[in-house]
Amino acid sequence: MARIGIIGSAGRMGQALVDAVLAAGETHAGGADKGDDLAALAAGSDVLVDFSSPHALEASLDAAVAAGVPILIGTTGLEERHHFLCDHAAEHVAVLQTGNTSLGVTLLAHLVREAAQRLGEDWDIEVIETHHRMKVDAPSGTALLLGQAAAEGRGVDLAGHSERGRDGITGARARGAIGFASLRGGTVAGDHTVQFLGNDERIALSHLAENRRIFARGAVRAAQWLIGKPAGRYTMPEVLGL
Amino acid sequence: MARIGIIGSAGRMGQALVDAVLAAGETHAGGADKGDDLAALAAGSDVLVDFSSPHALEASLDAAVAAGVPILIGTTGLEERHHFLCDHAAEHVAVLQTGNTSLGVTLLAHLVREAAQRLGEDWDIEVIETHHRMKVDAPSGTALLLGQAAAEGRGVDLAGHSERGRDGITGARARGAIGFASLRGGTVAGDHTVQFLGNDERIALSHLAENRRIFARGAVRAAQWLIGKPAGRYTMPEVLGL
Amino acid sequence: MARIGIIGSAGRMGQALVDAVLAAGETHAGGADKGDDLAALAAGSDVLVDFSSPHALEASLDAAVAAGVPILIGTTGLEERHHFLCDHAAEHVAVLQTGNTSLGVTLLAHLVREAAQRLGEDWDIEVIETHHRMKVDAPSGTALLLGQAAAEGRGVDLAGHSERGRDGITGARARGAIGFASLRGGTVAGDHTVQFLGNDERIALSHLAENRRIFARGAVRAAQWLIGKPAGRYTMPEVLGL
Amino acid sequence: MARIGIIGSAGRMGQALVDAVLAAGETHAGGADKGDDLAALAAGSDVLVDFSSPHALEASLDAAVAAGVPILIGTTGLEERHHFLCDHAAEHVAVLQTGNTSLGVTLLAHLVREAAQRLGEDWDIEVIETHHRMKVDAPSGTALLLGQAAAEGRGVDLAGHSERGRDGITGARARGAIGFASLRGGTVAGDHTVQFLGNDERIALSHLAENRRIFARGAVRAAQWLIGKPAGRYTMPEVLGL
Repeated sequence: MARIGIIGSAGRMGQALVDAVLAAGETHAGGADKGDDLAALAAGSDVLVDFSSPHALEASLDAAVAAGVPILIGTTGLEERHHFLCDHAAEHVAVLQTGNTSLGVTLLAHLVREAAQRLGEDWDIEVIETHHRMKVDAPSGTALLLGQAAAEGRGVDLAGHSERGRDGITGARARGAIGFASLRGGTVAGDHTVQFLGNDERIALSHLAENRRIFARGAVRAAQWLIGKPAGRYTMPEVLGL
Repeated sequence: MARIGIIGSAGRMGQALVDAVLAAGETHAGGADKGDDLAALAAGSDVLVDFSSPHALEASLDAAVAAGVPILIGTTGLEERHHFLCDHAAEHVAVLQTGNTSLGVTLLAHLVREAAQRLGEDWDIEVIETHHRMKVDAPSGTALLLGQAAAEGRGVDLAGHSERGRDGITGARARGAIGFASLRGGTVAGDHTVQFLGNDERIALSHLAENRRIFARGAVRAAQWLIGKPAGRYTMPEVLGL
Repeated sequence: MARIGIIGSAGRMGQALVDAVLAAGETHAGGADKGDDLAALAAGSDVLVDFSSPHALEASLDAAVAAGVPILIGTTGLEERHHFLCDHAAEHVAVLQTGNTSLGVTLLAHLVREAAQRLGEDWDIEVIETHHRMKVDAPSGTALLLGQAAAEGRGVDLAGHSERGRDGITGARARGAIGFASLRGGTVAGDHTVQFLGNDERIALSHLAENRRIFARGAVRAAQWLIGKPAGRYTMPEVLGL
Repeated sequence: MARIGIIGSAGRMGQALVDAVLAAGETHAGGADKGDDLAALAAGSDVLVDFSSPHALEASLDAAVAAGVPILIGTTGLEERHHFLCDHAAEHVAVLQTGNTSLGVTLLAHLVREAAQRLGEDWDIEVIETHHRMKVDAPSGTALLLGQAAAEGRGVDLAGHSERGRDGITGARARGAIGFASLRGGTVAGDHTVQFLGNDERIALSHLAENRRIFARGAVRAAQWLIGKPAGRYTMPEVLGL
């Protein structure tokens, strides 16, 4: 049984992670937030998982490096300096940083990249997402991740090809554009659809999360996969062998 | 057999109307665009149908009034003065002016009004539409018609409760808002969905047009219904008995 | 605060009901399964809620009648004699028996009836449902409830117009048929869609349950509504004023 | 410009093929049904396209072989002996035989195979299709093609793992099953969805045909691709480079 250490296990996501660790038949190495506790947690873990906050990131990475254990970072809202810290830590231990630990979304992004590459610009691409009424930003990070996969499949730059927030007299759709639309309401955990709209036919690739457990479950799967990996940066698609 | 006169029968919609008149087992009274032809067309018709253009509207209404025949106006892009002209003609003949002659959309709007009235503000309302890549405005007129039906069901003013073009840091959804999102691509004739998103459940009411024939077919049905009606303004819901 | 007594509060649904009672700001009058406990529960409650089992139904109804309190029966798998027992109890207290306490499904059935009545037999009706992989029967009770609403809207008998389990050489669709299809997989709490498929257009009316809390929440709302009602049988649509 | 010869150009599909040939900027080499006409058509074509009927297949293949030109067979309802005839002709010329010439469906099948391979048996697979009310068989040939792709991705035999026509007391879903459901109604040209239903999440991969032109367009693209290919049997995925 692997010993999985959860950094910031007190919050809702932390609790979901603990549940997922146990459901996967692994050992929960305990949780810690800072200081000595964190060092002890790292020393007693085969892998660390951090979904806590950007502020905690540096201490988490330091603890992983000091103990020589791999670390999964699922924290969102990271800035450029956080990515720099990840790069630095990855010189010493295995680091997997991602904005979405769902295995389903990871596979969907792979299929989107493949479809975008094959279909070409005669097929217009639209990314649509729905989230609960409390979400404060649009499009979702996952929608952008899917748009990025589409842009990579086409070999174009996403920023230069996005159509967002359509309203009013927009003119005809730009050829090659990747559109985004965001719906908000209720308690939706997260729906994402990428549509490819061609002449007289459409392809839609969708993911629907029934609740947030999938993120914890995917994180545990990724953490298991990280154990024993050499130093370096890793990605979710690698976990699925994509 | 009713004699249905098509004003502006040369265009794509005009041709679709002629086909729909014949498919309904009625007589196509001929088409005309202006002047003497228009007067002759009106004199030989039991009802007129005009999908031509706002510029033609006044002449069409005058011909209907002069001949004493009812008229269906399906032209889009009307301004306030056009509605005034319709009101004036309606003092003399039956006038049905509408932005959408589809019977399916007409029924959908009725169901949306009913659902909005029953569900209350605990259910967030979102209107989503998809149209072909050449469409230049967003949201579609039909999406606004559906949003209007939702607003009426709730007893609120649509303009004061719309959330359109979400992008960036939007903050949480406003309670009571009616959201709109527009997708563009391919050759889509027109999909519309109104979602009601509650706590742990959702209701979705959708209409999908496979092609534009439905607008011609609904127009013919409405024209048949108009024959023999007294002077006044009428609406699509009345055609369906809603 | 109303005192709501849950019969059979030990099971998963019972626990969900207790949570919903508290979330609604009401008092949980306690739970009981049989005998003296049941009589005491009824005496201390303003309304009883029974989701336990058909076997327990008679005792539950007797307790409600003896205490003179209304009762909501959400138990599934009832047979004709159970309905007879409900009728009998309804001579003395208010009784609401239903196979689905979701407010969203109740409204959806109302919209389906309305649409079926307006659209006529030129529009083919299909009912599609998806449930988790453990469900043992098809179509779901809710799918049948929606099919029944469609049949009522059309003024036909459901049993004589159902097309179920299509497979192989089926021949063309029968005019006036109401089709059913069942999908099974994963952990889906319950999706239901009624499609109306016309010439060149379609209308779809859907309900999606994110989890099973909605049944408990609707039951509490119905129970609140039942308090103070005179003896008689009631239905979910009446709770929503439909 | 390539010269594309249409065998059986009189029917509805034949006419769609002629339109698609011209829209693609190629030359319609004329149409023929049998005898000398067929030989002359083959002699004057760079590639033949046959969507006519199983009865005509032998003559079409003979004409292709005699003239030394490749041939695309889009005829449905083929039996084992027809496939034998194709194999035989493929010793002399390039032969592409397929039940679905849509490029979108071809890509979808590729994505389904990929997803089925990656996701494993924890994700239940369901194939759902909708077609117009006149269709006499279920599931559609394309649904079976998609189910076959899913079975290949999993490395199992489709026939031994299909669940079709669910109705009544079915018991829980069999692990590893691939389910099929068929909806019929209206004028639907063809919708297909493959769902992967996991624990707390779902992936759906869909194709929607707005009309039947896509089959003609894909056939022309495949025919263009066949020109100059050596003798042998080819498939639609190869046309897309999959």
